[in-house]
Amino acid sequence: MSFRDDGAAAVDWVASYLERVGELPVLAQVEPGELRASLPASPPETAEPFAAVLRDLDEVLLPAATHWQSPRFFAYFANTGSEPGILAELLAAGLNQVGILWRTSPLLQELEEVTLDWLAQLLGLPAGLHGHLEDTASMGTLAAVAAARAARPESRVVVCSEHAHSSVEKACRILGLEVRTAPVDDAFRLRADALDLTDVCAVVATIGTTSTSSIDPVPAIADECGRSGVWLHVDAAYAGSAAVCPELRDAFAGWERADSVVVNPHKWLLTPMGCSALWTRRPDDLRAAFSLVPEYLRVREDVASLSEYSPALGRQFRALKLWTVLRCYGREGLQRTIRDAIALAALFEGWVREEPGWEVTAPRPFSLVCFRRGGSDEENEALLERVNATGEIFISHTRLNGRYTLRLAVGSARTTEADVRRAWDVLRACSAVKP
Amino acid sequence: MSFRDDGAAAVDWVASYLERVGELPVLAQVEPGELRASLPASPPETAEPFAAVLRDLDEVLLPAATHWQSPRFFAYFANTGSEPGILAELLAAGLNQVGILWRTSPLLQELEEVTLDWLAQLLGLPAGLHGHLEDTASMGTLAAVAAARAARPESRVVVCSEHAHSSVEKACRILGLEVRTAPVDDAFRLRADALDLTDVCAVVATIGTTSTSSIDPVPAIADECGRSGVWLHVDAAYAGSAAVCPELRDAFAGWERADSVVVNPHKWLLTPMGCSALWTRRPDDLRAAFSLVPEYLRVREDVASLSEYSPALGRQFRALKLWTVLRCYGREGLQRTIRDAIALAALFEGWVREEPGWEVTAPRPFSLVCFRRGGSDEENEALLERVNATGEIFISHTRLNGRYTLRLAVGSARTTEADVRRAWDVLRACSAVKP
Repeated sequence: MSFRDDGAAAVDWVASYLERVGELPVLAQVEPGELRASLPASPPETAEPFAAVLRDLDEVLLPAATHWQSPRFFAYFANTGSEPGILAELLAAGLNQVGILWRTSPLLQELEEVTLDWLAQLLGLPAGLHGHLEDTASMGTLAAVAAARAARPESRVVVCSEHAHSSVEKACRILGLEVRTAPVDDAFRLRADALDLTDVCAVVATIGTTSTSSIDPVPAIADECGRSGVWLHVDAAYAGSAAVCPELRDAFAGWERADSVVVNPHKWLLTPMGCSALWTRRPDDLRAAFSLVPEYLRVREDVASLSEYSPALGRQFRALKLWTVLRCYGREGLQRTIRDAIALAALFEGWVREEPGWEVTAPRPFSLVCFRRGGSDEENEALLERVNATGEIFISHTRLNGRYTLRLAVGSARTTEADVRRAWDVLRACSAVKP
Repeated sequence: MSFRDDGAAAVDWVASYLERVGELPVLAQVEPGELRASLPASPPETAEPFAAVLRDLDEVLLPAATHWQSPRFFAYFANTGSEPGILAELLAAGLNQVGILWRTSPLLQELEEVTLDWLAQLLGLPAGLHGHLEDTASMGTLAAVAAARAARPESRVVVCSEHAHSSVEKACRILGLEVRTAPVDDAFRLRADALDLTDVCAVVATIGTTSTSSIDPVPAIADECGRSGVWLHVDAAYAGSAAVCPELRDAFAGWERADSVVVNPHKWLLTPMGCSALWTRRPDDLRAAFSLVPEYLRVREDVASLSEYSPALGRQFRALKLWTVLRCYGREGLQRTIRDAIALAALFEGWVREEPGWEVTAPRPFSLVCFRRGGSDEENEALLERVNATGEIFISHTRLNGRYTLRLAVGSARTTEADVRRAWDVLRACSAVKP
């Protein structure tokens, strides 16, 4: 194979994909097992050309893709793998750095440290935090809670609100800790006045919950945690990127007092999948939880490896894509991305509010709109499935106070006003149809 | 920015990097902090062109890289990010699929299932295993041991040999389990006759340990585990890829009886970093350990997501690079990679054996040679540092029966006989020099 020729074809394929992704059905319109059935049951005996992979990508694989790069992906939290981020992944794969010790890649380790420091500055986090990358917020939260457990081994309870992300419960299950759910107020925010910190090693507060993007009262929670010496972890996986805009900083009040903070640049900061930032003011506790240096990894130089702060030993070169994004957008470009998404969400929210028979079901601090059509839960669920089956848009749902609610999250840098308008048109058209 | 132009420049950069990587110092010749000091202290305010990133890659970043792609990288377990695998990472980043539920990417989920099934066939694993990918073997082992714990919650001990990888101890620390170290025989193999399975939920047997690539007696261990109903996890992270060659299958006897097996295609199977395969015959136990479906992820279709078998919720599209490698090499190409590496290691081992004043310190079942120069541990350690400081080769070490031992692992598909010969020349030259 010629790497240059195949590489040119691959770049061309991605360029063309990004040009036409808006025309493809957003949600894959296949049945379970359909892709599997269309692929050979066994691997090839002899080498095939790379061109065969590209051909199958178009003909066989693509219909089974749900297009996260589509400008009309509005489900969960929408995201964007930006062009510079995509090309940085090519470079990272070419370099194939492996972080184990500092010496196995000073590049990987020091660029990760510098990039996390840059990002902390952009988000207004305090100076001097220790930062590293995990692939997902699930792992960052696991790492933070493991450190909290190491710091207070006798306390086996983690407190979060019922709107905290499921990764908190998953981390606790892995760590053998109990989850105590704190009640929320009528805006889906953890009630700090109802916090019970008996036997608690950590509180997880969320800035931008998954269901509604509600904001827990971090300053009051930090007060309680401070009084009791309990680890405060702030999950800002989705919303944290918005702190790049000074006018939105009020939403992040108190996070500078957290023991650890997680933010996912792969969500709202233009970075391809697999880039979740974890900062801590207590790196020694993370190191106590994870450091373990066997003989075959002992070396002369006295530099702690990032692996000593993390559940895994081997590290991918995740920082390069984030560093590339920060450079190719700059503070201004990142701010524009956030502001545009919020403005489009505000527009959509306004349309819903003005339309009889529809209601907004939660406050909207960022770019997520929670809403529903008047009628039963079943009708709203059927509406969601009908809308998604058009392939025009993809939205998801949650349940608030027991009621089925639709969610539309703007987060793709490719989304325009026309795309949001189309979403609204599709929703209204599908709600007029009786199933 | 023009994605096509920048993409062409990025492909050209990687192509040129791979052409010249053999001429670069293998181990980074920088001091701790040197890269950090050479980068700006703050992120840019405004966008920079992608070309600036490429320029800095050459001028600032590359000197801090340890070149895992070098044909003379012989440390730890050498690896290769092959050309098709690298380009597949570009495609995966462009598609930016996110696995959460089946519907968020049928492509990601079903291609992962098919690819793991293909790889199981190539390696001679039994049909019908449930397979999925983690980014590292650390996570695969964590997942397997968590499932073992879920299956036997009252048993809090995990047994492995003192030569098991440190990720076993790390997983146990995370899971709150105790590690009991079983003794090894004079070939560094776990002694099945000395297994104490009291209060044990899992035994981790290794095929290809990190220090010496020794092979634990899996059939005898499987007998013991079977009698006691204990979960058997086989860590074949490095050596597992060698099972693609039928003539090497004896080394893998018994792994077909394991409850779970981990193999890292990113080690010896040409796939870029972040690709570790975990198979299990007990998927229900993995699901019991990790499944957790909050309201906002409940959907109509009844398809278990791969996230339900895994510590994290969000999944990267890791299968595409492995699938691409399997196609672009085919069984024959993969076998050739393994056989070539083993033949080169055998050649090196022969030179060491023939040379007075040198000794081979462990049996060599695969492509790792453990050896030392006659003399003290300090002299051997100084030799290692001197050799690595030349930049000509990069090797690592371990300690066997308390004695400092050098390790040379052949695993790069780019390594030729001339490269191994050069390693031997450098070693002998450096051993002749008094420091």
